[in-house]
Amino acid sequence: MSFSEKVFRDPVHNYVHVNHEIIYQLINTKEFQRLRRIKQLGTSSFTFHGAEHSRFSHSLGVYEIARRITERFEQKYNSKQLTDGWQAEETMVTLIAALLHDIGHGAYSHTFEHLFFTDHEQFTQEIITSDETEVGRLLRQFDPLLPEKVAAVISHDYPNPQVVGLISSQIDADRMDYLLRDAYFTGATYGNFDLTRILRVIRPHKTGIVFKHSGMHAIEDYIVSRYQMYMQVYFHQASRSMEVILSHLLKRAKAIFTDNIQYFELTSPKLIPFFQNNFTLLDYLALDDSVLNCYFETWTTHSDIILSDLADRFINRKVFKSVTFKSEDNLKPLIANIEAVGFDTNYYTAVHSSFDLPYDFYRPKSINPRTEIEMIESDGTLAELSTLSPIVKALTGVKSGDTRFFFPKEMIIGQNSLFETEIQAFQAQIINGRLKEI
Amino acid sequence: MSFSEKVFRDPVHNYVHVNHEIIYQLINTKEFQRLRRIKQLGTSSFTFHGAEHSRFSHSLGVYEIARRITERFEQKYNSKQLTDGWQAEETMVTLIAALLHDIGHGAYSHTFEHLFFTDHEQFTQEIITSDETEVGRLLRQFDPLLPEKVAAVISHDYPNPQVVGLISSQIDADRMDYLLRDAYFTGATYGNFDLTRILRVIRPHKTGIVFKHSGMHAIEDYIVSRYQMYMQVYFHQASRSMEVILSHLLKRAKAIFTDNIQYFELTSPKLIPFFQNNFTLLDYLALDDSVLNCYFETWTTHSDIILSDLADRFINRKVFKSVTFKSEDNLKPLIANIEAVGFDTNYYTAVHSSFDLPYDFYRPKSINPRTEIEMIESDGTLAELSTLSPIVKALTGVKSGDTRFFFPKEMIIGQNSLFETEIQAFQAQIINGRLKEI
Amino acid sequence: MSFSEKVFRDPVHNYVHVNHEIIYQLINTKEFQRLRRIKQLGTSSFTFHGAEHSRFSHSLGVYEIARRITERFEQKYNSKQLTDGWQAEETMVTLIAALLHDIGHGAYSHTFEHLFFTDHEQFTQEIITSDETEVGRLLRQFDPLLPEKVAAVISHDYPNPQVVGLISSQIDADRMDYLLRDAYFTGATYGNFDLTRILRVIRPHKTGIVFKHSGMHAIEDYIVSRYQMYMQVYFHQASRSMEVILSHLLKRAKAIFTDNIQYFELTSPKLIPFFQNNFTLLDYLALDDSVLNCYFETWTTHSDIILSDLADRFINRKVFKSVTFKSEDNLKPLIANIEAVGFDTNYYTAVHSSFDLPYDFYRPKSINPRTEIEMIESDGTLAELSTLSPIVKALTGVKSGDTRFFFPKEMIIGQNSLFETEIQAFQAQIINGRLKEI
Amino acid sequence: MSFSEKVFRDPVHNYVHVNHEIIYQLINTKEFQRLRRIKQLGTSSFTFHGAEHSRFSHSLGVYEIARRITERFEQKYNSKQLTDGWQAEETMVTLIAALLHDIGHGAYSHTFEHLFFTDHEQFTQEIITSDETEVGRLLRQFDPLLPEKVAAVISHDYPNPQVVGLISSQIDADRMDYLLRDAYFTGATYGNFDLTRILRVIRPHKTGIVFKHSGMHAIEDYIVSRYQMYMQVYFHQASRSMEVILSHLLKRAKAIFTDNIQYFELTSPKLIPFFQNNFTLLDYLALDDSVLNCYFETWTTHSDIILSDLADRFINRKVFKSVTFKSEDNLKPLIANIEAVGFDTNYYTAVHSSFDLPYDFYRPKSINPRTEIEMIESDGTLAELSTLSPIVKALTGVKSGDTRFFFPKEMIIGQNSLFETEIQAFQAQIINGRLKEI
Repeated sequence: MSFSEKVFRDPVHNYVHVNHEIIYQLINTKEFQRLRRIKQLGTSSFTFHGAEHSRFSHSLGVYEIARRITERFEQKYNSKQLTDGWQAEETMVTLIAALLHDIGHGAYSHTFEHLFFTDHEQFTQEIITSDETEVGRLLRQFDPLLPEKVAAVISHDYPNPQVVGLISSQIDADRMDYLLRDAYFTGATYGNFDLTRILRVIRPHKTGIVFKHSGMHAIEDYIVSRYQMYMQVYFHQASRSMEVILSHLLKRAKAIFTDNIQYFELTSPKLIPFFQNNFTLLDYLALDDSVLNCYFETWTTHSDIILSDLADRFINRKVFKSVTFKSEDNLKPLIANIEAVGFDTNYYTAVHSSFDLPYDFYRPKSINPRTEIEMIESDGTLAELSTLSPIVKALTGVKSGDTRFFFPKEMIIGQNSLFETEIQAFQAQIINGRLKEI
Repeated sequence: MSFSEKVFRDPVHNYVHVNHEIIYQLINTKEFQRLRRIKQLGTSSFTFHGAEHSRFSHSLGVYEIARRITERFEQKYNSKQLTDGWQAEETMVTLIAALLHDIGHGAYSHTFEHLFFTDHEQFTQEIITSDETEVGRLLRQFDPLLPEKVAAVISHDYPNPQVVGLISSQIDADRMDYLLRDAYFTGATYGNFDLTRILRVIRPHKTGIVFKHSGMHAIEDYIVSRYQMYMQVYFHQASRSMEVILSHLLKRAKAIFTDNIQYFELTSPKLIPFFQNNFTLLDYLALDDSVLNCYFETWTTHSDIILSDLADRFINRKVFKSVTFKSEDNLKPLIANIEAVGFDTNYYTAVHSSFDLPYDFYRPKSINPRTEIEMIESDGTLAELSTLSPIVKALTGVKSGDTRFFFPKEMIIGQNSLFETEIQAFQAQIINGRLKEI
Repeated sequence: MSFSEKVFRDPVHNYVHVNHEIIYQLINTKEFQRLRRIKQLGTSSFTFHGAEHSRFSHSLGVYEIARRITERFEQKYNSKQLTDGWQAEETMVTLIAALLHDIGHGAYSHTFEHLFFTDHEQFTQEIITSDETEVGRLLRQFDPLLPEKVAAVISHDYPNPQVVGLISSQIDADRMDYLLRDAYFTGATYGNFDLTRILRVIRPHKTGIVFKHSGMHAIEDYIVSRYQMYMQVYFHQASRSMEVILSHLLKRAKAIFTDNIQYFELTSPKLIPFFQNNFTLLDYLALDDSVLNCYFETWTTHSDIILSDLADRFINRKVFKSVTFKSEDNLKPLIANIEAVGFDTNYYTAVHSSFDLPYDFYRPKSINPRTEIEMIESDGTLAELSTLSPIVKALTGVKSGDTRFFFPKEMIIGQNSLFETEIQAFQAQIINGRLKEI
Repeated sequence: MSFSEKVFRDPVHNYVHVNHEIIYQLINTKEFQRLRRIKQLGTSSFTFHGAEHSRFSHSLGVYEIARRITERFEQKYNSKQLTDGWQAEETMVTLIAALLHDIGHGAYSHTFEHLFFTDHEQFTQEIITSDETEVGRLLRQFDPLLPEKVAAVISHDYPNPQVVGLISSQIDADRMDYLLRDAYFTGATYGNFDLTRILRVIRPHKTGIVFKHSGMHAIEDYIVSRYQMYMQVYFHQASRSMEVILSHLLKRAKAIFTDNIQYFELTSPKLIPFFQNNFTLLDYLALDDSVLNCYFETWTTHSDIILSDLADRFINRKVFKSVTFKSEDNLKPLIANIEAVGFDTNYYTAVHSSFDLPYDFYRPKSINPRTEIEMIESDGTLAELSTLSPIVKALTGVKSGDTRFFFPKEMIIGQNSLFETEIQAFQAQIINGRLKEI
């Protein structure tokens, strides 16, 4: 029986079109449906209340962008070999890799990984190639070599650089979707760029993906949008403060776990394998935002005052405040004040850095060399983006972001408290949201 | 210390402006923050994947619309008494009622209420007037009479009909926000209407809220948008099928509870008071989407095959299919087929109706008489909306919607199954998504 | 040499794609470029200052919608004969007819036609089939039968009802573009509907064009949008008042022409053939908004006080005011007042009607029977739209609009004038923008 | 009688609100209404067909932005003297200057000024202060000192730097409106920035206008949008090519005027004063796009082949093509080819430069020192924008744009022509749209 097209209404791309049964079946697997229960932006929705969208919708969006690009490639640049054309048989592996690129993401991944040594990229590989997952079985049934092919795209080991470039490069389907989607749901208009124009100027090349010279300003605009979203949304201090609280909360749970095994077995069974650092893929897949939030809510009544207080701060959004500073040495008096007020500074302060490199050209000697963005002229000459755009040049190779010191809000709004002296001493050291330089 | 304006970035209204400390404090209560963990549209996000927005963002939106209206009323129609003007001292109770109108909503409220005899409107009243809640204490501390005033607005007992009309009428701040917001997040553009224009033509009147005659078409457009959202989004059969599954899942849990008390105490402690029909306000506040989803995920491995299967269908979005029909008698052969295949029809079929009355004029004898929408001419004459608009007239007093029979997808896509005969017999009775009439 | 795709940036459709050289050449003809100098909405930009868009941009938009539909038809419903499929060889004639359907429009067509007995539909036919036009020569050179084919589509005489339906029916490429475009440029959001969804549910049928049943609400929304645009934009009384002034201005020029031949030959040469009722196609093509406005500006200094005053009112937007009324008899006292003040009521008053029939089903006996909108079910059954939608039913066969009496603004804002008595008498007869009924 | 608020529907700002009778009266003057007949972007609509908007709509938009800013200033920063607050009595002069800042613009101003030594800024001053204009008389009647005050704002001589800064600085109401408006009408989304956010962070300061530090990224985004609009819209080569043609056309008319006085007196009377370099303000006000286009259409049949051909190219959009180049010396062989084909290179070639300085800080020694953009911290410290933003720093003081050589399209698409040899020689010198370097 032929497969009749399915569509998903999508506020960003209008419609997501599914034309192959395998894609539709992958969407219906439990591993993919699980992404509905994982927020795309983690703690950002505490700052931008609209940003409650899930990794499910983002994954559909990445797939849809890949679909539009490969459809165009097939129509305009069809080729039998890897030259400057597109081989139609690469379309399916590209679409599947696009759809599944984030399948290994877990609840509050970045914070979680840091504490429990999980690795969402490795889980993505495993979910795709495993025989224990619906995804893995479906892929293998469709084509025995498909799981490894898809996994190779995601690990950048796939031989065709065009496919890898579409899924993972400085301007790929993943980033294009998340910038547009996160802009739409946060309401931060800075993330908008001209996707339609980029889809018109992208083309396959024997070295990977390149862009027609005439589309230079659209690419430039994308780079600037990316920079703006990092500065204004992803690095927002309130969201980072919630990440700090979450991190300290999980750290505290882990720290007191051995003395409270029974409590956690009863209330938080799915976290045990991680506290014990002995977990399987299925343990990992059993976690999502709902499970963690449900546990945290329970913890708000635990007798350990740090655990319950941090859980309360997380669940009820009691953000930490923060300042920028020049040297960690200068933080000492602040930390002393915070201790004097009675906070355990291991759990109530943090230094947190957020930096992003908006763009870089290829630097073969760097640890993580990037595939640069190439513009192509009508005679086939290539030019690296930053050589053409003064704006991109200004952002190239320069990390943007900041390092902040986080502390409880009580330190600056605690009027009429027992600790008025300490609080005033604390406040006196801050000006314009920065630590006064000594 | 004076309160400096706080703003929330909102994708629908651009910014939500908070100018009073009491509003800001109410937003920061645990009862209000809890709304972040309750989806605005319940099971609709299974159909419209963008619709993952929470009651938190909707509540801020209703507040913001009320703020814009009352700001304009204060500027243009200020008055000392209740005449055709606005008394500025009503602004605060209006804003608070707008903000808190949904505070009593719980996880998947409509389904939950039906099974456990909870009542979100009554909980709203209680949360506002209770001394056990942060909300209640804050309000009472601000003004000892405030809790009862706000509760009266919500129960329509407040003496000033303008205030009641702004919060609850056929065109109120609540509906205006949810139509726009649900349209934005689902991507269903039908829900859009011209809020700016409506805000320009709304005005206070001694009988409540009226609209300038020149804005008739904007109001008409709002009524049509409302109708379209009900037809296309709220009544979507896939979302209703997930509601049916959820309802059956909870019903099954309740049914087997007595025989599995220990299991539920261990895995689902916060539901016990509801299974036992003996719950308090705080029991109710302890529930949210995260908690329920977390429990449902656990239930997928229970030994009761109906409980675990329905939990799996809900968590992994395995929708029921449905048909419309004319008489329940005609369903009997279908039900027989479903039973023959081995499904317990108490848990695997349902008749589910969704009807809405897009608009009605005031009918004093009806059970639930509506406050009609009145248009005002320059000389003060009032005219009821449906007397002016042929479109509204067509929708007036006419319920739209349908009644559908839901059943497992397996009944129509079960090729090569053991039950091919029954399935073919089943399918033969359906044409164009409707039950064939006999 | 192969033709490489050209695109036009379009704010409504994002991009207009031109894939055939003949289309590009037609756009570059002088007859088509002339449409840049003719406003799409005539006098509406006097009311909605954004609505300065031309028939050029609308024509490109109609072409683009037709291109998207036929592209989809070729992909999904390709067929060799006229059955329920689409014959690919009809695409070109469809695209050209879409592009050229308005090529015969002139400056302020509707007013102009009424006074000078021109007929823009007949001119469209002539331009397409003439050997005197660049358009006609291009078409004939491409295919000797093409001019007559395209003309037949426009006159509804083309044998294939699908092609005719796409260009001219109750839901065709022309209307879909103008509603969206006029909504965009006026800023009246009511005109929006879900074009993408309609393009998904439209399909060819042996009887013409039909729409999938599942898209019913999108079609319903389109009908309502159409109604709203007529009520709120196209029938706006200020625009109609400018049309009245324009009509009287041209009527006056025609009336005094014989006594002022030399003046008009000198200042307004291109209008002479029309004053003399002896014009050719090329005379007609020589007129556009620029030419008429340039002449009108010159006329503001003519010694005929009615001509110069009306020209001044038109150029400098001095609108007439208006009232609705029940019977023309009741206007007599108003007209008497206006005469008493000194206005020549032949040139300073008018009764002007604007009515639209938002939708109708097929009525074989009506003068101008309409091709009704048909919805198709999955088994091929057709159903006429108004049988499915209560909203459409309410609008079916019912003309909406009004008849207004127009008069100089001086009659209601002429305080402190010599004619205070007459003006007060005049004003006393008006209430709520309507003539008081006696 | 009190003035009741008037609104204009605007697609960019939704509504333009007029709350003062004097503003409404100014809009209704003939000088202001004349702006309806002058396109905002001159020849850009030949490239972006949506960009047919007028200076009328832009002027309303600038007024509306100024109105929103001053309304907020009055509410939040009211002050009796010029300190860091806003004096409410400056609001009116600000609004009027915003509304009238472009009143002296004429048809195709930039090209026209260059040839006929008119100066639109000086005309703006004159129109405002003259007793011959409706604008001037209205202003003086309202307040005898008002005309000179408004003129002083426009010439930057007004003593209050806040008022001057709102009307004319690197981020003023004028630029904010035109970027948003031109983006809207062209469809080039790059021009969008977050106006709402900027209106929230702008504030008066004793030195002029400053912006809260927290809004830095919104300002940065505005600067980048400005840069993008210049690069992609304002400097588009097709629009510039139409400007070149227009300029040559007017130059030719002027050149042959003396030998064809009677012809021009008959067909183009309103240009005579400019050909004779002896014109008054009223002569200038008599010109608009309609008048010039009407004349150009007439000229297409003149016997001077250069005049008629250039008129035809302009009216029927037959663009010149262009290349970039490094040195004018290198153009010589190209020019020789063009001459060999028979074109008069004085009228058929041009070197045309377009450069913009997206941003600069204050350089006291520069010819035209700019008022830099200052960001203000919570303690009142000011910081110049480029010291905070790496992107702005990259654009600071650097002119962007290019110099192009324009020539007839026939030189590159003239296959099968008599001059194939010359054309091939010409084409051989061009690669990737640039002149090959020798």
